[in-house]
Amino acid sequence: MAHINRQRAMRLMQAARLDALLLLTPESFSYATGATAGVATMWRRSGAVAAIVPADETLECAAVVTDLFEAAFRASSTISDIRVHPIWVETGSISGLTGAGLTDEELMRTAWEKQGRTRGFARPETFDATTGFRLAADLLSARRLAGGRIGVELDSLSVTDFQLLAAALPEAELVDASNLVQRLKMIKSPQEIGFLQTAVELAEAGIEALHDAIVVGRSRDDLAAAWKAGVVADVARRGVETLTGTWEYISVGENPWTKGGVVAPGALIKVDVGCLIAGYTSDTGRTFIVGEPSRLQARLFDALRQGFEAGLALLRPGKQLRDVHRAASDAIGRAGFPDYTRGHFGHGLGASLGSEEWPFISAKAEIAIEPGMVLAFETPWYVDGVGGMIIENQYLITATGQTPMNRLPTGLVVV
Amino acid sequence: MAHINRQRAMRLMQAARLDALLLLTPESFSYATGATAGVATMWRRSGAVAAIVPADETLECAAVVTDLFEAAFRASSTISDIRVHPIWVETGSISGLTGAGLTDEELMRTAWEKQGRTRGFARPETFDATTGFRLAADLLSARRLAGGRIGVELDSLSVTDFQLLAAALPEAELVDASNLVQRLKMIKSPQEIGFLQTAVELAEAGIEALHDAIVVGRSRDDLAAAWKAGVVADVARRGVETLTGTWEYISVGENPWTKGGVVAPGALIKVDVGCLIAGYTSDTGRTFIVGEPSRLQARLFDALRQGFEAGLALLRPGKQLRDVHRAASDAIGRAGFPDYTRGHFGHGLGASLGSEEWPFISAKAEIAIEPGMVLAFETPWYVDGVGGMIIENQYLITATGQTPMNRLPTGLVVV
Repeated sequence: MAHINRQRAMRLMQAARLDALLLLTPESFSYATGATAGVATMWRRSGAVAAIVPADETLECAAVVTDLFEAAFRASSTISDIRVHPIWVETGSISGLTGAGLTDEELMRTAWEKQGRTRGFARPETFDATTGFRLAADLLSARRLAGGRIGVELDSLSVTDFQLLAAALPEAELVDASNLVQRLKMIKSPQEIGFLQTAVELAEAGIEALHDAIVVGRSRDDLAAAWKAGVVADVARRGVETLTGTWEYISVGENPWTKGGVVAPGALIKVDVGCLIAGYTSDTGRTFIVGEPSRLQARLFDALRQGFEAGLALLRPGKQLRDVHRAASDAIGRAGFPDYTRGHFGHGLGASLGSEEWPFISAKAEIAIEPGMVLAFETPWYVDGVGGMIIENQYLITATGQTPMNRLPTGLVVV
Repeated sequence: MAHINRQRAMRLMQAARLDALLLLTPESFSYATGATAGVATMWRRSGAVAAIVPADETLECAAVVTDLFEAAFRASSTISDIRVHPIWVETGSISGLTGAGLTDEELMRTAWEKQGRTRGFARPETFDATTGFRLAADLLSARRLAGGRIGVELDSLSVTDFQLLAAALPEAELVDASNLVQRLKMIKSPQEIGFLQTAVELAEAGIEALHDAIVVGRSRDDLAAAWKAGVVADVARRGVETLTGTWEYISVGENPWTKGGVVAPGALIKVDVGCLIAGYTSDTGRTFIVGEPSRLQARLFDALRQGFEAGLALLRPGKQLRDVHRAASDAIGRAGFPDYTRGHFGHGLGASLGSEEWPFISAKAEIAIEPGMVLAFETPWYVDGVGGMIIENQYLITATGQTPMNRLPTGLVVV
């Protein structure tokens, strides 16, 4: 299922005077089509796939797909106007053919003929970007948009591929739509929110398992394994079939960066973890302390708590993201640490390459908070000689405020 | 440890009349420095890190790194001329400080002052690409190369980042070095070969575990789990600490693409799997059949075997990759299937984004086979209604031929 909201896309394109979006990264392709982009996007190159989203809502969306993923595309996308080009993988299908009276050679030849293969057909080394861009141009031409203002993500399109694309669309004006696409993705669909909800529930099941595993003498890797095992057990218990990955930044002890930490009295345990559902990642941070915290540990964590509470109070429609940043920074300053500085206190969540996507809760972010955003909000601090500390929840912005998607308490947990 | 061979880099740069390479992707940065690029490369953007490799071997290499990863860089790279810029993550270090007589606030302020932090220091939202590129320009200037011909990977540098880089290096001529870097990476260092050897040994331990798990009624997912468990058990047995990932394309039954296959008499089991050691991926393919193959299954697999043997005979110095492609294609044609077409019968192995890296064993690849290359060589065929079939080994090219890095037999295994 595609996640793009065409009404919102139309409004953003109208404001930018764009006629269409031409989406080329695998993650934007999946966002607009609901289908996987496939193996031909494994390199840092574009041209294997494309999704076309006209600004005019009455014009159908369209896509360029690779032959190996055509069936998967048709099974998972509502877009029916597609152009297909071959990749390097040889296939064939004898399904529905009777081999009666045919030799094996004749059977395979018949199968390829039925697929529409012409004599002399030869597959490209990997895929042919020039062909992919030409097919995208054909789809734009069929909508009378090949001479229009076409939005492309220049933040991710390589110089090489831009040149190939420009040659395929000589009449078009290619306009940077990187931020427009970010703004489009910023508001989540109900299904995306569901993915992010399931993802954080799994991550928290893992945190509970990790909590149970905090025993003096255990290593950082033991705790990381306990977290993962807790996630996997919850996946099995609930029958989740869409887990596509997990990640963890767990530290144990006074050095927040070492892999060699061991649970001991006084050790801070920083747990910053995420699970991916259908590519959508959660992001949660919790901090444990073995025995009572030292005075310094308590002071630092309390400053983070004050920052978290002050920022959270402003995380609602009617405010901007920079308001949240300022409130959190100021509160940490008032708590005794005016020189503490974070670039951002959180970020959007989605199906990006890494765990953080635009927008960021930063000092200069003049971004209005809107219902439907899902944001990780966090106040972390990593101090050599003390340990790692973090408070991080993910929130769904509602019409009047925000709802935490986490259920575990955010405070410093004494074990 | 860096893997780059500066002599080879010098020769390639001299042939291309380049004065230096400026490497910006995380994988090329690690290749040239031996250090991890860090979290600021999680987006599709450049400018957080850079590695500079002058053509002149008497000039020292240099790097731009982020402050969060400075210590890790110094611990893992021999490059000492570095420029550091801050990212969004707030840190601190009280290691080596005595808190005697200081309040907690004074202690943290002292810690930051000791790190060289100046008043008013504020971290960027994520990282500042303009600063990163300016520091790279400074390092080039210090080598009197800022006005030279600088090789950059335009296949991976976005249009947006190219513009920022060009503004930071107004006197330089930025030249596409995408293929030059590919050619550099094509010849593996002894350490890279070791990574790829360990990786394939783990993958084969998993294949043996999968073999043992082939029992009528088991699902595809059961076999995939058995493979992974076999890998994990071998990792534990050998004490391997550098496994960074695994991947599998396993199919069971007559549909090579379904996730729902079940082991049954006559089912083909296609196992295409890899393990990553320090980011370097192995790639191995094996095929099992439950009971005796049908006549058609035997015919198709035999054609792949003939193609594999014919290609392998030419996989040696003195030949080109296209010679291997032609020999394999021709043999499969002579075996009865002249319309069979593969874009490539294999590829380089390394630490790329996906499992396949340049060069490819393709029809047009005028690439001389050289000692030190590590190549996956494969003859796969995926036929709906029959099943998935593959023969794939990885080979180290030697002075006189090639050595398989696999030890399991390549034939169709009857279970």
